Amino acid sequence: MTLKINSERLWSSLMVMAEIGATPKGGCNRQALTDLDKAGRDLFVSWCKEIGCELRVDQMGNLFLRQKGADNNLPPVIIGSHLDSQPTGGRFDGVYGVLAGLEVLRTLNDANQQTLHPIEVVVWTNEEGARFSPAMIGSGVWSGEFSIDYGWQRADKQGATIKQELERIGYLGETPCAPFPIKAAFELHIEQGPILELINKQIGVVKGVQGMRWYDLVIHGQPVHAGPTPMDQRKDPVKAAAQIIAQLYALADEYAPQARATFGDINVTPGSRNTVPETLTLTVDLRNPNQGILQQMDQKFRQISKQVCAACDVDFEILDEWNSPAVEFDKTCIDAVREAVEETGIAYEEMFSGAGHDSVYVSRVAPTSMIFVPCEKGISHNEAENAKPEDIAAGCQVLLGAVLKLAAE
Amino acid sequence: MTLKINSERLWSSLMVMAEIGATPKGGCNRQALTDLDKAGRDLFVSWCKEIGCELRVDQMGNLFLRQKGADNNLPPVIIGSHLDSQPTGGRFDGVYGVLAGLEVLRTLNDANQQTLHPIEVVVWTNEEGARFSPAMIGSGVWSGEFSIDYGWQRADKQGATIKQELERIGYLGETPCAPFPIKAAFELHIEQGPILELINKQIGVVKGVQGMRWYDLVIHGQPVHAGPTPMDQRKDPVKAAAQIIAQLYALADEYAPQARATFGDINVTPGSRNTVPETLTLTVDLRNPNQGILQQMDQKFRQISKQVCAACDVDFEILDEWNSPAVEFDKTCIDAVREAVEETGIAYEEMFSGAGHDSVYVSRVAPTSMIFVPCEKGISHNEAENAKPEDIAAGCQVLLGAVLKLAAE
Repeated sequence: MTLKINSERLWSSLMVMAEIGATPKGGCNRQALTDLDKAGRDLFVSWCKEIGCELRVDQMGNLFLRQKGADNNLPPVIIGSHLDSQPTGGRFDGVYGVLAGLEVLRTLNDANQQTLHPIEVVVWTNEEGARFSPAMIGSGVWSGEFSIDYGWQRADKQGATIKQELERIGYLGETPCAPFPIKAAFELHIEQGPILELINKQIGVVKGVQGMRWYDLVIHGQPVHAGPTPMDQRKDPVKAAAQIIAQLYALADEYAPQARATFGDINVTPGSRNTVPETLTLTVDLRNPNQGILQQMDQKFRQISKQVCAACDVDFEILDEWNSPAVEFDKTCIDAVREAVEETGIAYEEMFSGAGHDSVYVSRVAPTSMIFVPCEKGISHNEAENAKPEDIAAGCQVLLGAVLKLAAE
Repeated sequence: MTLKINSERLWSSLMVMAEIGATPKGGCNRQALTDLDKAGRDLFVSWCKEIGCELRVDQMGNLFLRQKGADNNLPPVIIGSHLDSQPTGGRFDGVYGVLAGLEVLRTLNDANQQTLHPIEVVVWTNEEGARFSPAMIGSGVWSGEFSIDYGWQRADKQGATIKQELERIGYLGETPCAPFPIKAAFELHIEQGPILELINKQIGVVKGVQGMRWYDLVIHGQPVHAGPTPMDQRKDPVKAAAQIIAQLYALADEYAPQARATFGDINVTPGSRNTVPETLTLTVDLRNPNQGILQQMDQKFRQISKQVCAACDVDFEILDEWNSPAVEFDKTCIDAVREAVEETGIAYEEMFSGAGHDSVYVSRVAPTSMIFVPCEKGISHNEAENAKPEDIAAGCQVLLGAVLKLAAE
């Protein structure tokens, strides 16, 4: 008999957790290592302990909630995601993957069923990067991408460091923040994009993650008065930026449909309406699931900036803020997810993730893959983020199936 | 014998005044109705009183320093500009016109020469608009563009109103802020543009002022995650803004060389590098000395915004912030300046002002024109603003000549 998750219990847990940091517009503001994050962690840990899980907290505050297997010398199957949110975030991003992991354990517990391998539900610290930069710092340190000192010293805008805030909220653990043998790692997440909804499929079998590069493009012009200075005498950073942006959108179209170009923030100084700006700073986010194409996009971005700025007689610099290569997930894990979804008869699509996830780092040291469910209009990082209860249930059922396959071998 | 101004005295006065609010980079921060503005006004008034001028202060804190003529029932010739500066302003913008007026009076005083008409040097309050918006509020209320209550109630970012600040610094006068009969009004100013320097001429005979329109263009998109959302599924205000900006630069080129398009400030929300912005606000400043062409530019700006935003599937609104029609100065005043400069043998150019000045409002109620001198590289509204002593002297000599012509008739 196939085990069935309790979809109402899962939904209810999500809605209870969403009360912690609830915003007036129906979203969630539970940023990493705030008092609200502590409250969310406390609640989650209490729920896990109710069903007999053991808690380990590592030096980065990552939480590991372990349900024993028949042979506890075997490496665990882990189910992980995050509980922190964007400042104006939604009720599903991250928390869904964590509470679906809890629902898998609860379902096994209800059925008095023990897996061969132990299972651990993992909460990674500061996935969003909204309070502390960079994003995914908890899984990043754990996987060896960053040193523990680097992780501890990341500070928010007020200067509070991750280590200080972990101590303050009581989640600075003693377990070394380092990888250990893992049988398989799964992460269930809302898609944060519109594709599944558009093609009317309930499950995304995620084969990898787009590579992504973050830059600050800083263009230096000359601040002159808006009225007298003839157009051809100006060193205008806005003129250069408009052309560069247009050419980068064209570049994304050239590599459609997988390429992405996003300009999330623009700042100019002095910011006076009747003065040509002295400096314009533009954030640039380029993505592609093919690492070779991403590298081509990187090169073309640099060429475009150079050509346009020379033509506009302005100076520029490109600051490399982040470089996350494209990731291919583990074949065994992907196969387990595909088999699990095929057993349910649910319509699915094989796809790439367009967003970064803790699984990017986890996949470097453990066999890993992800599962997606649709979210309304693809909207995420937004208080309006929404998902259907039936999709939330379907994803968790597939997660259970995939975990059981690999925890049994 | 032609009267000669004392160029060293004029330069020295400028440098002494520049100490009040001097910035480390050699500029000036003497914003309207601050303690520093009070200090600058006090110094200027004391200099005028030394040569026997009488002070009137009106309800907007505009200062009128009167040197009597042979017939004081005749309307005065006025010489006016402003003493306030931008936050990172220069040593010449505005203050040059005021202190050159003083130098005209000092020169007459030295020579014991009395004009037929009285002469008044005028300091207009808050020309820059840097602390209190809109710009040119002192001359604006005086000319009838704004009511006295509107002027008094303008507040800075901290909420302090013009009336409160006038009272605080002791410059809330009792003279009604309203026009009176005036023979002629002159304003001497640095060009704030590069034209005179480029063509190597020392004097600009200013025939009028560009019309200018200020707008806020607000574009509303949909904030979605930068990774998963395909490019063709986005409602991206940055994409629309880049196209609108490019088309407005092309529009300015279409009406070259007189047209101007400037985008001095850009703000996006939420301003997160991995989220497509929800809203982009762009300041738009369009200028042309021909009112009909400026109206065409206005219409095309609205059409461009509509077409581009429809194509990009985003909403927009255009907020009209300011509308200053093109101004033609008074023929008698322009002729007086042209004759004065031709008598000196200095090379001159007939031109339009690209920047707004108090003379725009003054010209509505009095015969008015302006005189320009070159400034280094056309840079203004900038601490690096600079002018040559010989050009500063030449402008004042031409001013004296023009004033003497019309004050004698």
